[in-house]
Amino acid sequence: MDKILRIDMGAPGGPKAIIGPLGPYTGMGGRGMTSMVVYEEVPADCHPLGPENKFVIAPGMVTGSPASTSGRISVGCKSPLTGGIKEANAGGQAGQVLARLGYAAIILEGAPAAGAMYKIVINAQGVEISDATPYQGLRNYDLAEKIKAEYSDKVAMISIGPAGEMRMAAASVAVTDREFRPARHAGRGGVGAVMGAKGVKVIVIDDTGMKMRKPKDPERFKAANKQFTQGLRQHPVTGEGLPTYGTNVLTNVVNEAGAYPAFNFSQGQYDKASLISGETFAELQIRRGGNPTHGCHRGCAIQCSGIYVDKDGNFLTKQPEYETVWSHGGNCGITDPDAICRLDFLDDDIGLDTIDMGAAIGVAMEAGIIPVGDAEGAIRLVDQEVGQGTPLGRILGGGAASTAKAFGMERAPVVKGQAMPAYDPRAVKGVGVTYATSTMGADHTAGYAVATNLLKVGGDVDPLSADGQIELSRNLQIATAALDATGFCLFIAFAILDQQETFDAMVEIINGMFDINLTGDDVVALGKKILSMERDFNKRAGFTAADDRLPRYFRREALTPHNVVFDVTDEQLDSLYNW
Amino acid sequence: MDKILRIDMGAPGGPKAIIGPLGPYTGMGGRGMTSMVVYEEVPADCHPLGPENKFVIAPGMVTGSPASTSGRISVGCKSPLTGGIKEANAGGQAGQVLARLGYAAIILEGAPAAGAMYKIVINAQGVEISDATPYQGLRNYDLAEKIKAEYSDKVAMISIGPAGEMRMAAASVAVTDREFRPARHAGRGGVGAVMGAKGVKVIVIDDTGMKMRKPKDPERFKAANKQFTQGLRQHPVTGEGLPTYGTNVLTNVVNEAGAYPAFNFSQGQYDKASLISGETFAELQIRRGGNPTHGCHRGCAIQCSGIYVDKDGNFLTKQPEYETVWSHGGNCGITDPDAICRLDFLDDDIGLDTIDMGAAIGVAMEAGIIPVGDAEGAIRLVDQEVGQGTPLGRILGGGAASTAKAFGMERAPVVKGQAMPAYDPRAVKGVGVTYATSTMGADHTAGYAVATNLLKVGGDVDPLSADGQIELSRNLQIATAALDATGFCLFIAFAILDQQETFDAMVEIINGMFDINLTGDDVVALGKKILSMERDFNKRAGFTAADDRLPRYFRREALTPHNVVFDVTDEQLDSLYNW
Repeated sequence: MDKILRIDMGAPGGPKAIIGPLGPYTGMGGRGMTSMVVYEEVPADCHPLGPENKFVIAPGMVTGSPASTSGRISVGCKSPLTGGIKEANAGGQAGQVLARLGYAAIILEGAPAAGAMYKIVINAQGVEISDATPYQGLRNYDLAEKIKAEYSDKVAMISIGPAGEMRMAAASVAVTDREFRPARHAGRGGVGAVMGAKGVKVIVIDDTGMKMRKPKDPERFKAANKQFTQGLRQHPVTGEGLPTYGTNVLTNVVNEAGAYPAFNFSQGQYDKASLISGETFAELQIRRGGNPTHGCHRGCAIQCSGIYVDKDGNFLTKQPEYETVWSHGGNCGITDPDAICRLDFLDDDIGLDTIDMGAAIGVAMEAGIIPVGDAEGAIRLVDQEVGQGTPLGRILGGGAASTAKAFGMERAPVVKGQAMPAYDPRAVKGVGVTYATSTMGADHTAGYAVATNLLKVGGDVDPLSADGQIELSRNLQIATAALDATGFCLFIAFAILDQQETFDAMVEIINGMFDINLTGDDVVALGKKILSMERDFNKRAGFTAADDRLPRYFRREALTPHNVVFDVTDEQLDSLYNW
Repeated sequence: MDKILRIDMGAPGGPKAIIGPLGPYTGMGGRGMTSMVVYEEVPADCHPLGPENKFVIAPGMVTGSPASTSGRISVGCKSPLTGGIKEANAGGQAGQVLARLGYAAIILEGAPAAGAMYKIVINAQGVEISDATPYQGLRNYDLAEKIKAEYSDKVAMISIGPAGEMRMAAASVAVTDREFRPARHAGRGGVGAVMGAKGVKVIVIDDTGMKMRKPKDPERFKAANKQFTQGLRQHPVTGEGLPTYGTNVLTNVVNEAGAYPAFNFSQGQYDKASLISGETFAELQIRRGGNPTHGCHRGCAIQCSGIYVDKDGNFLTKQPEYETVWSHGGNCGITDPDAICRLDFLDDDIGLDTIDMGAAIGVAMEAGIIPVGDAEGAIRLVDQEVGQGTPLGRILGGGAASTAKAFGMERAPVVKGQAMPAYDPRAVKGVGVTYATSTMGADHTAGYAVATNLLKVGGDVDPLSADGQIELSRNLQIATAALDATGFCLFIAFAILDQQETFDAMVEIINGMFDINLTGDDVVALGKKILSMERDFNKRAGFTAADDRLPRYFRREALTPHNVVFDVTDEQLDSLYNW
C-alpha cells in the first residue's frame, strides 16, 4: 500500500488516471485516509455533487494482510445527505483485493462530461478506464452478473445501482462479498450519489498475481494475530451471539430494554418483535437450508453474516442486519421476514442505505402515503418508485429527512439530515449522545454506546440516565475513529472492550505489520486526530453546536414504556469534544 | 394599535384567544414587531412546522393612518424554507384594516389537533374562531368568493391556499386587495406553510365602525404627509416608471445591463426579453382594456399595481411583478405574456411564492422534467402537480432548493435555501452581497442594491466591480429593515434615497403620528436593532459565515455577456455586519 490512484474524471479528452506516492497521507488507512484527503483537499463549502467534491476509497491500515477480521474498506467525501464530511465503510472483498494491489487510496476528482459513465478496472498491470454506458441503469445484482461473465468471480467489484446514478441522497456504494454478491454496502450519507456524480458506475479490482500483504515483523504479527483471534472466539458476543444469529440478535435485547423505536420512533417496544428476531430468522434459515453463519470477506473470525433463502431454498438476500430488520420491519409494522428480506435485497440491488430507506418509509407511513404495516406497499415504494426514479421515489430516495420535508412533517428522526438507526435515543442515551454529536450525523456505529448501555460490554452505564453518557460516547467515538482507520471490523470492539489482552493483541498486530511500537495512547491519539479533522471540516462547512442536537421532539415527547425523554443537556453535548 | 391578539391553537378544548397589552413590544410594527416576537419567544432550534414556532402578523407602525403608501403588513416566523428567521410583507387591505381595529400583532401559537382547520374573524366586537374544514382545499380565489358572500367585500382577508395547507416550503400568505382579490402575497420563505401548520385557513378582518388611526400631532403629520406625497410624485421612478409600467419596467433595464438571469442563471441576457417587458405588457393591457395603473391598497400614491385581462377583456390576474415575469418567463424561456399571467394567477390561487416557484421550474427544466420554454408544461406543473400535491408537486412546492436536491443537481440558485430573484449576482454585485448576507436568504427586497448599481438611485456604484458593494448593501439592509417596520411600501425608497426632503418628510410623518422626535440616526438605529435580533436568532438556529455565501458555481462559472463571476471576497462578506 504505497501508492494512490487519482482519476480526474473531468480531464479534457476523458478521465485521466495518475498513480502517485502517498506523500502526506503515509501511514493512513480506512477512515483516517478518507477523512484526511477530504479535510485537506475538498473545499468545505463546495456542493457535494459538484466537481469540487472528491470521492475517496481506502482499505484499512492492515487490510489485505493475514490480520483476522480486517477486510473493511472506507469510502469518504462531502455528504449530499448531511452536508458534512462522510465516511462509510463496508466489508466484502474489495478492501483486501485493493490493498494487495498496493493502493492505499483511490481518489475520484472533478466532474465528467454530461451523461458520461465509466468503468474503472484496476489490476496488476495498471488502470483502465472505459465507457460504462452499456451498464447504465443496471441494478447491482445484474451488474455483478455481467462483470462476473466478463472477468470471473475472483475479482472484487465496487459499484452503484440506479440510486447512485440518480444521485439520491440515500444512495449507497456496493461491495461484493466472497460469493461475488453486491451485498455489502457503504450505506450511509449518500456516498453512492457522489460516486454517481463522478460518473463511475463500477470499479473492478483484480488482484490476480498479487500476494497477501506481508507483515514487517512476521513473528510478532503471527503471535498477536493468534491471540487476537482467540480473543474474538472466546467473547460471548463475537464468539457466539454474532456467529449464531448475526446482528439481529439485538431485536429481542433492544426491545426488552424498551429502546426499540417502533412506528417511526413513536413507542419503545414492539409487541411483535419476536416475529422478526434473530432467533426467529436463524431458526427459519436452518429449516429452509440457508446459512446464518457466514463471513462477508475471507479471513473473518466472527462470521456474523449469512445467506437467507426463501421457502424453496432459493437465495433471497444476504442475512439482513438488525438495523435493516428494524428499519423495514418494526419501524414500519412489518413482520413477515420474507418481506423484510425482499426489501433488504431491493435496497442492495438498487443501491440504497437500508437505514435511511426504512426510516423514510416509516415517515411516509405516518404521512399516510401507504398504510402502516403494508409490506407489499413498502416493496412497491422501493422497487417501483425509488428504483424507477419517479418523483415519489426521488423524495424517498433522499431519505427520511427529504420525505418529512416533502410532506411537511416535524417528526423526522434525523440528525444532520441522516436517519437515526434502530436504537431510540431516549432509552439508550449514550447512543443518543453519539447521534447528536457524531461528525457523521445520526450513526450508531460512530460510538456504539449500546454496548455499554444495554449489553454491559466495556462497563455498565444506565441507559435511561443522562449521567456518564458523554464520557462513554466520547471514548467510544475516539476508539471507533481509530478502529475505522485500521481496517478491522467494528465488531471486534465487543472483545477488545471487555478483554484487555485482546485489545493489546490488536495493537500488536499493527505493530507487527509495520514494525512500530504503537501504544494504546497512540491509538487514542489517532482517533482524536481523525475526529478533529472531521469536525474542523464540518465547522468550515457551516456546522455549529445547533447541529449537534436531536430534533426537539425527542425532548418533548416521552417514550413508552419507560416514559423517558432525551435529557442530556445542551451544555453536556457541547462538552463532548473537550479533550 | 395598543393590543396584541394571541391565539393558542393547541389549547385544550380548541383554540383560545387572549387579547393583551403590547408590553415589551410597544412601539414596534411590521418587521420590527414580527422579528422581535420571533426573537424573544421562539426557540431558535425548534422545527418550523412544530408547535414551538409562532406565526406573527403585524401592520406597520403608521399603517392604518392617512400616511401615504403605508399599507404594508408583515408576517413572521421561523422559516421552513431557510431554517432561519423570516419576515415577508405584502400590500393589500389587511394591514390598514387590522391597524384600525387596534391590533399591533396577531400571534398564532402551539399546534392544533390533527386535521383541524380554523377560520378567525376579527372585528370591533372581538374575535371569533370557528371550524374551517368546509373551506379545506379551496384555492384562494374561490375562498375569497365564499368569504365575500358571507361577509361582503369591505372586509380584508388573510389566507392560505392548498400549498399552505400542505405545508409546502414555497407556500405564501395571501392578502386581499381593494377589489377583494387575494392577489397580494407575503410570498417568501414558506410563511404559508407555518400558517397551515397552525391550522388556520383564513383570517377575516372587518373594521366596520372603526376609523382611520389619528396622528397625535395632526398638523405636523398632515404637512409632512403632503410633502412626502409630492416627493413620491415628482421622482421619476415612483412618479412615472412604476405607475406607468409597474415593476416590470425593469425587464428591459436589467436585460440591457446584462444582469438578467436567463435559463436558470446560465446567461445574463435574454434575446426575447422585449416580448415580456413592462412596456409590452402595458401596451397590451391598454389595448385590451386592462389597467396598468392601480393601487394595491387605499391611499397609495405610487399605483404600481395593475389589472391584467385576456384578449376578451376578462380578468386573468393582477399585473405580475417583474420578478414573476422573470421567474416564469425569461428564467424558463417562456415568452407568452398570457401564459406568464396564468402562472402568476395559479401561484396566487394555490398560494405560492412566484419567485421560488419559477426558479423551481427553471431547475426542473434543466433536469429535463419538461422542455425549456414549455409554457403549457409549466402551467401543468403548477396547476396539476403542485396544486394537487402530487409527489412531483411536493418537490416543486418545496422551491428551487428542494427541486435541485430531488434531482441531484448542483445548480440551485439559492442562498439559505431560498431562490434568488431576477438579478444575477455576478452582474449586480451589490444585490449579490444582499443575497449572501441577508438574514432572510436570497432576497432582493432586503437591500435593493439594484437601485444604485443599475438605476443610479441613491448614488452610483459600478455593478460589475466588487468595490463598494458591502457598504452599499449594508446601508440598504439597515434602511430596509427600518422601512419594513414602518408600514411604508419599499418602493418609496427610490424617492427617499434620492431626495433628502422626502426622507425627512417620511420621518416627520412618524413623528407627527406619535408626537416624537425621531431623527435619521434613530431610523438607522432601528434598522440595526432589527437586523441584530434577526441575525442573533439565525446564529442560535445554527447559521454561520458559511451560510452567508452564494453557491460556489457563481464564483466558478462566468456570466455572459460581461464574463463576470461573483468576486466579492468571503472576508468582505463577513464584514457586512461590522457596525
